[in-house]
Amino acid sequence: MGQITSRYIEKDFIPVPQLSHGKHKLCNLPLCEVWMTDDTTFCWLVLIPRKKGLREFHDLPQRQQMEVMKEITLATKALEKSATEITGKVPTKMNVGALGNICSELHVHIIARYEGDAAWPGPVWGQVALVPYANSEKLKEVMATMTKALLA
Amino acid sequence: MGQITSRYIEKDFIPVPQLSHGKHKLCNLPLCEVWMTDDTTFCWLVLIPRKKGLREFHDLPQRQQMEVMKEITLATKALEKSATEITGKVPTKMNVGALGNICSELHVHIIARYEGDAAWPGPVWGQVALVPYANSEKLKEVMATMTKALLA
Repeated sequence: MGQITSRYIEKDFIPVPQLSHGKHKLCNLPLCEVWMTDDTTFCWLVLIPRKKGLREFHDLPQRQQMEVMKEITLATKALEKSATEITGKVPTKMNVGALGNICSELHVHIIARYEGDAAWPGPVWGQVALVPYANSEKLKEVMATMTKALLA
Repeated sequence: MGQITSRYIEKDFIPVPQLSHGKHKLCNLPLCEVWMTDDTTFCWLVLIPRKKGLREFHDLPQRQQMEVMKEITLATKALEKSATEITGKVPTKMNVGALGNICSELHVHIIARYEGDAAWPGPVWGQVALVPYANSEKLKEVMATMTKALLA
């Protein structure tokens, strides 16, 4: 699947600015770029398939639909692990969502949720203003923890 | 994949009441039951894998993770088509989400969204009170339209 996916993706892919805004790139998986939302409230990843013009999962060919699910489960497990390290608590529930109402380019949010968190039990999108990391050392540390879990 | 999935699912599966409440069952796909939220505001499906105790996509074995993605894309296309028939307008965007903050049993929401709808551009969950179909003939018609598209 790796080789087929590498022929499918665009080597010069850059996400639309609306999507990368307020986020930091962590790494590439075979199909998707993995970005982290710069937010101290939530541990929050975004997967972006490296192909322009996608809107829905069914815009991907079936092999890439399967690959995106592999990468969703890989990233969900990695975020569950790294959020536990970062916060000292195991997340109550992982949230996975592909909405695209504001930016329609296909992207998948993966968010570690804790009972009683700032948006609990509602969804996070549009509910709580992002609070970026003011401390760049702490930001680097969080990014490193997540990247290590993603590439393990 | 169908045969492997049929060995995996529980033949006597019943969703937890919290999950089936306010919804109507439309049909079975190989892995998931498909339910429709009884709501006149949104065209809204919920996929529920027929296995107790699942919480996250990665609780499924890999073959069933792939199957759930197949069923997500099948149901998304079917809902896009049937929402167009029901409302007379092509949805602006399809929303797919597996949250589980309120009911943690694995389930996947698929919702047809329209620019300017009651929750636009935010997510629907927890934002707008459900308005069930008062007219049972209309409800039956909507259920039939969706079921036909799902089983096409």
